[in-house]
Amino acid sequence: MLPRGRPRALGAAALLLLLLLIGFFLFGGDLEYERPRGAAALDGDPPAGRGGHNLSDCVPPRPLPPKCELLHVAIVCAGHNSSRDLNTLVKSVLFYRKNPLHFHLVTDAVARNILEMLFHTWMVPAVGPQVSWIPNKHYSGLYGLMKLVLPGALPPDLARVIVLDTDVTFASDIAELWALFAHFSDKQVIGLVENQSDWYLGNLWRNHRPWPALGRGFNTGVILLRLDRLRQAGWGQMWKLTATRELLTLPATSLADQDIFNAVIKEHPGLVQPLPCVWNVQLSDHTLAERCYSEASDLKVIHWNSPKKLRVKNKHVEYFRNLYLTFLEYDGNLLRRELFGCPSPPPPGTEQLQRALAQLDEEDACFEFRQQQLTVHRVHISFLPHEPLPPRPHDVTLVAQLSMDRLQMLEALCRHWPGPMSLALYLTDAEAQQFLRFVEASAVLSARQDVAYHVVYREGPLYPVNQLRNVALAQALTPYVFLSDIDFLPAYSLYDYLRASIEQLKLDSERKVALVVPAFETLHYRFSFPSSKAELLALLDSGSLYTFRYHEWPRGHAPTDYARWREAQTPYRVQWAADYEPYVVVPRDCPRYDPRFVGFGWNKVAHIVELDAQEYELLVLPEAFTIHLPHAPSLDISRFRSSPAYRDCLQALKDEFHQDLSRHYGAAALKYLTALQQPPGPA
Amino acid sequence: MLPRGRPRALGAAALLLLLLLIGFFLFGGDLEYERPRGAAALDGDPPAGRGGHNLSDCVPPRPLPPKCELLHVAIVCAGHNSSRDLNTLVKSVLFYRKNPLHFHLVTDAVARNILEMLFHTWMVPAVGPQVSWIPNKHYSGLYGLMKLVLPGALPPDLARVIVLDTDVTFASDIAELWALFAHFSDKQVIGLVENQSDWYLGNLWRNHRPWPALGRGFNTGVILLRLDRLRQAGWGQMWKLTATRELLTLPATSLADQDIFNAVIKEHPGLVQPLPCVWNVQLSDHTLAERCYSEASDLKVIHWNSPKKLRVKNKHVEYFRNLYLTFLEYDGNLLRRELFGCPSPPPPGTEQLQRALAQLDEEDACFEFRQQQLTVHRVHISFLPHEPLPPRPHDVTLVAQLSMDRLQMLEALCRHWPGPMSLALYLTDAEAQQFLRFVEASAVLSARQDVAYHVVYREGPLYPVNQLRNVALAQALTPYVFLSDIDFLPAYSLYDYLRASIEQLKLDSERKVALVVPAFETLHYRFSFPSSKAELLALLDSGSLYTFRYHEWPRGHAPTDYARWREAQTPYRVQWAADYEPYVVVPRDCPRYDPRFVGFGWNKVAHIVELDAQEYELLVLPEAFTIHLPHAPSLDISRFRSSPAYRDCLQALKDEFHQDLSRHYGAAALKYLTALQQPPGPA
Repeated sequence: MLPRGRPRALGAAALLLLLLLIGFFLFGGDLEYERPRGAAALDGDPPAGRGGHNLSDCVPPRPLPPKCELLHVAIVCAGHNSSRDLNTLVKSVLFYRKNPLHFHLVTDAVARNILEMLFHTWMVPAVGPQVSWIPNKHYSGLYGLMKLVLPGALPPDLARVIVLDTDVTFASDIAELWALFAHFSDKQVIGLVENQSDWYLGNLWRNHRPWPALGRGFNTGVILLRLDRLRQAGWGQMWKLTATRELLTLPATSLADQDIFNAVIKEHPGLVQPLPCVWNVQLSDHTLAERCYSEASDLKVIHWNSPKKLRVKNKHVEYFRNLYLTFLEYDGNLLRRELFGCPSPPPPGTEQLQRALAQLDEEDACFEFRQQQLTVHRVHISFLPHEPLPPRPHDVTLVAQLSMDRLQMLEALCRHWPGPMSLALYLTDAEAQQFLRFVEASAVLSARQDVAYHVVYREGPLYPVNQLRNVALAQALTPYVFLSDIDFLPAYSLYDYLRASIEQLKLDSERKVALVVPAFETLHYRFSFPSSKAELLALLDSGSLYTFRYHEWPRGHAPTDYARWREAQTPYRVQWAADYEPYVVVPRDCPRYDPRFVGFGWNKVAHIVELDAQEYELLVLPEAFTIHLPHAPSLDISRFRSSPAYRDCLQALKDEFHQDLSRHYGAAALKYLTALQQPPGPA
Repeated sequence: MLPRGRPRALGAAALLLLLLLIGFFLFGGDLEYERPRGAAALDGDPPAGRGGHNLSDCVPPRPLPPKCELLHVAIVCAGHNSSRDLNTLVKSVLFYRKNPLHFHLVTDAVARNILEMLFHTWMVPAVGPQVSWIPNKHYSGLYGLMKLVLPGALPPDLARVIVLDTDVTFASDIAELWALFAHFSDKQVIGLVENQSDWYLGNLWRNHRPWPALGRGFNTGVILLRLDRLRQAGWGQMWKLTATRELLTLPATSLADQDIFNAVIKEHPGLVQPLPCVWNVQLSDHTLAERCYSEASDLKVIHWNSPKKLRVKNKHVEYFRNLYLTFLEYDGNLLRRELFGCPSPPPPGTEQLQRALAQLDEEDACFEFRQQQLTVHRVHISFLPHEPLPPRPHDVTLVAQLSMDRLQMLEALCRHWPGPMSLALYLTDAEAQQFLRFVEASAVLSARQDVAYHVVYREGPLYPVNQLRNVALAQALTPYVFLSDIDFLPAYSLYDYLRASIEQLKLDSERKVALVVPAFETLHYRFSFPSSKAELLALLDSGSLYTFRYHEWPRGHAPTDYARWREAQTPYRVQWAADYEPYVVVPRDCPRYDPRFVGFGWNKVAHIVELDAQEYELLVLPEAFTIHLPHAPSLDISRFRSSPAYRDCLQALKDEFHQDLSRHYGAAALKYLTALQQPPGPA
């Protein structure tokens, strides 16, 4: 991994030596790992031409590590894109692994935020005790050198670790790699695969002056480290001395830690155990890796160390690309499989969950609902890079959720809402990649830095609408949130108008107010959006627009009092009534949605009940509006809406919701039960 | 595999012995492999309790077969459902394999039809020379015994073969299994894993009288056969003698070939080489397999030999289910990867394709279009069981194509069109499973036996609309086809009316006639469908309906002459004009759609040009109509419609189409070029 980015002042000024090195390869802040163009040719060539390094040629097969031995893996990861890469790498490792694993992740704040949530919700058995987070405050801005300082940064009692770049893909069991530690002689401390290019031979172009290396040098995408011996040998001093000396005569390293590892090894060749080339097949632009893979019967690790990644020119790239896509699109939920015969503490939360699941009755007509409610979905927050602005006092984030069949709404939504958005997307792993390509192909979406996309991975038959809303809500960073649905387009002016209203009304986030945005609908799928309230009213009068669900379910929005809204010049207060489900703007710390409502029906109604029970004031804004666009019913709806069992289950959920409400709010909740005696709402 | 079904008369009356056996387990016709309920307990228990069979305990690891050795696999497969199972099994085998493979498939007519197309379009390198189809005419109706007759049915020079049931899943390289042939002694001819249940111990219930077996007996889901030695040893005589003798005292076998294999082995224990239990982990209802997998560090093959399949009760079923789902949902396209260093003839068609792809210019603005046109999609015809009626002289099949976002249309379509349909679905492997569940959950869809679903697996960024239409068209079995689109609902009476019209007009499939079905559209997504032409006209007059694309593109249907249609009582002839794209009924052998048109635009127009160029007469039917329902634009459309490059490429495709037209039809094609000088059509 060779980072590039803006140089930034170092936190620890004492690290003078490090300062000498950072000119070319160190970065701070929201750094992402990218490779400098000039590094394209740094890769290479298998030992076939030299014959020395290929362990698979010269040693008999050794046994794998004992069945349940815990293997340690360290990965340095910073930023949004590397976090996605790490996800794919980890899937490939977990797919083939048969041992418990302990991941030691060295991250920046962005990656830590993403990966903590990902691993927490992934709940993979026998990963851990849990994922460890290496404190990185001492090394802030030094990601390019992090692999060199691991012996000091990892726990002092940790003797061995496999270090991986995020851009490698496993095609075999990592235990086979771990087993190679057994080949280390008493003096060897680092296992590395030879570099598969001529970079370090220094003959790539005129005046090419690489750092010193042993022969073709070694690639540091996959490293076996004997941490215990490195500490004993004074590794920290060793590499700094070498680096300082080389810097007297050489320009700053372009390959970061890899140059320094190689320089140290050149000086102390006894430290290195060369590994078989198949453990780091380097697919750089002008790689010589074919010498490796055409002889081997079995490739173990693919290293995408070209800046072109999957688009690298290589006549066999299809082969490697397919291995990579396998794990890119692999359903990570399937990796939640235990290891037979390796007792290990279950991931946090699993036991409680298992108990709850075990108590479910499979014969219960609502079994699917209850199972879905208990499902913990893997969550990948901030799936794409984004840079939220510092929060402003009256700012509002639009919060919504969607699945693949509503992606087309995103561009229109971006045009209608110029402010921050927090969107939860319910996708399979493969769909997440389609989504990524969709955003990349859209100029409108690519240009937006204030839209956060949170992927919630699909599992189970029912759409977990309220869990999705809660994920999006929890990630909103502004003091206020506009709780919307994806099929609505807000008035063009709504974002500005809401912030102005919040300011004018002198709201603060302590005050329990829900601002109601009146909802309308068009039944035409070709439609010219009104640019003002006056235009909207004209369309309403001409029958081109209706108030929302006017034909099927007017109760849902009746309390908004559209007649009053027509004339209103100032905000007016309205009272809760049964089945009210307006779209509202509330402080970010508002109550969460009740996750028991999965599938379709009563999910927003219950939330408004909760707001009312907590005495939120409902204020309708006179100039605010949002319009629902028509669409074919989603699969999730059409599958269940027609089923009587579905309606029965929804009723059961409602009853339980009201019981919980009474328990929580006592007599004050009585009015909700009374209201329920009226004719039931639709699913 | 234990089949069940209707007994059927045998083709070869001479096989008297076989007749004795078929009473309980043989079936003919469109048989599917299912397991009788009574067989639930036939599985079992690993050798842990007995200690004799576990090869992994008693022998040192042996080397894998040589790098490029060709491995032979035989699978018996009949019917639609087993064909889907076989697809999943083959994916799991291909995923881990590193050797060339030769599949010997023993099929009925249904499975052969499906699997020939699947393998032909899959184009997996180093599978072959190609898949072999074992002639099964001598064995018709004897699928339950096919594994016993393989030594006679497979090519006489084939010495070794692995025989697999379709309900096994590989979790390892099949070469490791092949390597176990090396453990056979000179006398051993069959490798089998012990049965993992107490079935053959005969103590499962009172009066349980299983066939004789050695100890717990063996399971035949995974078999290694030394065919050469079996032939030498007179295997054909041997098993028939044993079976005949046992039938004197025992009821007909309930487990088909497995009972007979076991009876023979009981008599000749020297024939069998017991295999390690991990090579056939049997997940039956009351399996004892845990003794095997809790000790092993590595499971190799999972066998779903419970009639409950994935719903089997087993505390570890999640683990196994995840392995199975991995391959069920795995993108089979990713398995089109070559084997490095194993030269093998490319699958048929690949070389030509590679050449064409190599000639493409990546810098060409239309590169994506041209690449998509050349893409060979895997095709799984008849994905679900269906039973077409024998073709009737005037019958019409509705032909259409769709992707996941239009599944909701299927129920309505079934209600509107009571006749046969041939539908191509553009899906990923994972979506195909969602589709399967969707159909199973729908009473309307499950009830239909005359709807054929053909899955075309997704690959590439552009929707291959005309390739899809051609797949559906090629599978239509009636003399006429109604070429429709999925967003249209035909008049309820259309199916009957079309057949009556074809009869009345005395059409025969020699006559080049295209019957035009006038097309309308509603812009409302709630809509009451007209039950007659009179009702339709009333809706048209009230502005609730329009002629199709009235607002955006009236040229597409102008030649239909809606004014004339209003009054028409009899069919009337119309003339082709530029951009005409009516929905038509034509003989099944009509011209195919031009596959160069991918994405959206001009795909139907080109087909109508082709019909006109071949002098099809266009006859508008006075009572026929079909109505387009509104929908959100599909992702495929919205991604490309806005792009100027897209329009340019479409123009380039049109130009090339016209050049080909001139080449083919000479001066007669001039009129199409002239028409093109008019203002261009929309994308």
